[in-house]
Amino acid sequence: MKKFNIAKSRRLRGTPYSSRIEHQGVTSYTIYNHMLLPASFGSLEDSYHHLKEHVQIWDVAAERQVEISGRDSSKLVQLMTCRDLTKSKIGRCYYCPIIDDNGCMINDPVILKLKDDKWWISIADSDVILFAKGLAIGKKLDVNITEPDVNIIAVQGPKSFDLMGKIFGIKIKDMKFFGFDYFNFGGDDHLIARSGWSKQGGYEIYVNHKKSGLELYDKLFDEGKEFNVKPGCPNLIERIESGLLSYGNDMDNNDNPYECGLDKYVNIDSNVEFLGKDKLIQSSKNGIQKKLMGVQIDIKNISVTESLNLFDNNNKVIGELRSAVFSPHFNKVIGIAMLFKANWEISTKFKINIDGKSVNGTVCDLPFI
Amino acid sequence: MKKFNIAKSRRLRGTPYSSRIEHQGVTSYTIYNHMLLPASFGSLEDSYHHLKEHVQIWDVAAERQVEISGRDSSKLVQLMTCRDLTKSKIGRCYYCPIIDDNGCMINDPVILKLKDDKWWISIADSDVILFAKGLAIGKKLDVNITEPDVNIIAVQGPKSFDLMGKIFGIKIKDMKFFGFDYFNFGGDDHLIARSGWSKQGGYEIYVNHKKSGLELYDKLFDEGKEFNVKPGCPNLIERIESGLLSYGNDMDNNDNPYECGLDKYVNIDSNVEFLGKDKLIQSSKNGIQKKLMGVQIDIKNISVTESLNLFDNNNKVIGELRSAVFSPHFNKVIGIAMLFKANWEISTKFKINIDGKSVNGTVCDLPFI
Repeated sequence: MKKFNIAKSRRLRGTPYSSRIEHQGVTSYTIYNHMLLPASFGSLEDSYHHLKEHVQIWDVAAERQVEISGRDSSKLVQLMTCRDLTKSKIGRCYYCPIIDDNGCMINDPVILKLKDDKWWISIADSDVILFAKGLAIGKKLDVNITEPDVNIIAVQGPKSFDLMGKIFGIKIKDMKFFGFDYFNFGGDDHLIARSGWSKQGGYEIYVNHKKSGLELYDKLFDEGKEFNVKPGCPNLIERIESGLLSYGNDMDNNDNPYECGLDKYVNIDSNVEFLGKDKLIQSSKNGIQKKLMGVQIDIKNISVTESLNLFDNNNKVIGELRSAVFSPHFNKVIGIAMLFKANWEISTKFKINIDGKSVNGTVCDLPFI
Repeated sequence: MKKFNIAKSRRLRGTPYSSRIEHQGVTSYTIYNHMLLPASFGSLEDSYHHLKEHVQIWDVAAERQVEISGRDSSKLVQLMTCRDLTKSKIGRCYYCPIIDDNGCMINDPVILKLKDDKWWISIADSDVILFAKGLAIGKKLDVNITEPDVNIIAVQGPKSFDLMGKIFGIKIKDMKFFGFDYFNFGGDDHLIARSGWSKQGGYEIYVNHKKSGLELYDKLFDEGKEFNVKPGCPNLIERIESGLLSYGNDMDNNDNPYECGLDKYVNIDSNVEFLGKDKLIQSSKNGIQKKLMGVQIDIKNISVTESLNLFDNNNKVIGELRSAVFSPHFNKVIGIAMLFKANWEISTKFKINIDGKSVNGTVCDLPFI
């Protein structure tokens, strides 16, 4: 696999923590919401083991917030997602597919209810703000839509609870999963949620001030020494093993939420109005023809940079691989694939062409672990 | 300047030509519309000189098309731009600021009128398709909005005319700037426009079929030997010298088109309805308080990865640098900066902090050449 430099510019802007992570040894970047998102600090595998045992500090400022406030804010937020938010509570996070009028995925953010008339949509990689603005203008909704200057630091891993308790007090250890509250640091109140893009536990700190944010970034490393803290980032191995989906990788605007296995977030039986509801009712009635599943492949190394077809014994395409990585746990490559209906049975065998060589694979359930 | 790898994935997908350009020596990528866009083939300066003398083939598939068709397509397209398109003609390209309801920039595409009810918006780096979808849904417009599988190859440089004439016939050399027509290659009709993101002349081939596109890519190199053809990409030196603006670098959603010097594309006196018209009328009446201008800086090297403040002699901020590069022509750094009103006079002096050192600069007009 050839390596290529990233050409930096203001258009792919850095974060308040970029100078820190570049000093700490970030080795590769991806781009996410027009910003730099670290993708590795040396070996992915070393980071994976460390994340599962200790605690990591992640610069995930690229997880931008679309802030929607005003009289019609709840109406607009509900319009964009097929998850029924009528019973949503202030101080809670909600994983929500964002859907267009075709019932297809536009994003899969976590939505935070800050007030009855103020929401943050904490987005994956697409310009949800433009969709929200277009809808609000077209429907003449009384809302204010902005991207606040909020730059998230994630604290992830089993020792994150002790580290965060040490800095913010014991109360933060009692916070429930997907709950959030406000905590003071450096004279500023920051929203902290019990959340994060790993299954190893932890928090996301929605830092709303650059100066106190940098102080907090440094404090986390100072206080974290006893917990073997390291800089990190969303880890491809851990997130695939855990079955955490990535918008743009595993799913895109050609897929509906049922096809992505997000059935429990599709509330077609509720009374709420949302985009694409008729299409999703139809899809539910007719049944889907493809869905995301796990696959295991009998090789030790892979780099997926585009969809790769999966073939049956008759060389018929049965689906496509969208993300994959070598898993130390399974000692083979595991991945997330979109599979056509005839091939959903667990243990279905397939062939895939990797670097000019045909290799064997097997269909399995998600998540892997 | 430290260098970092780009972490490739399906989310930052390659183009039909990626395998070719990686074989041909691309050295860095940027990300543009969720795709890989080559940013250099070795030395920027060598490519700059070559582009100005010979002909280059560019993989600019990342310039995506938002296709808007249907009964209300003209209405929707006009709604999104402050340029009056009522007299637009089929077979012509139009540079158009895309504007939100605040009168601020969302993108600055070239819009192609394919039919009376079919348009391509050839976008810079933001998800215009989501804005268009939101507006269409909200206003219940009768339109179909898609991203067609079109992957542009640009042929740029003074010898592009001879090369394209050799392949497509003499007729293509008579095409006027920003005109387009259809030409057959490999059994497929491809739209070819006299356009491109350099001021060295050339064409953009809107390739609509992968197989014939790859054949054409190779053909351009075969036939181009006598013209000293090379692979290339939008060149930072050439585009800044030519004053070609880059959305996300030089301007963003905090700027209106007057502030970006795009006055001639703002038709507030026309009868057409477009978003933000009231805000732009107000801005025109009140006058703007900042605008994009050129700057020259007395150093030989720079890498702009974020806005950099410009200071007067009293250490007061007078504007910010947004893009810059060393220019062989001027033998110093030149750049594009947003300057506050008190400092618009040509030859205004300023200071800027580069890598911890204060250096001198001068305000000038755009374009540089």
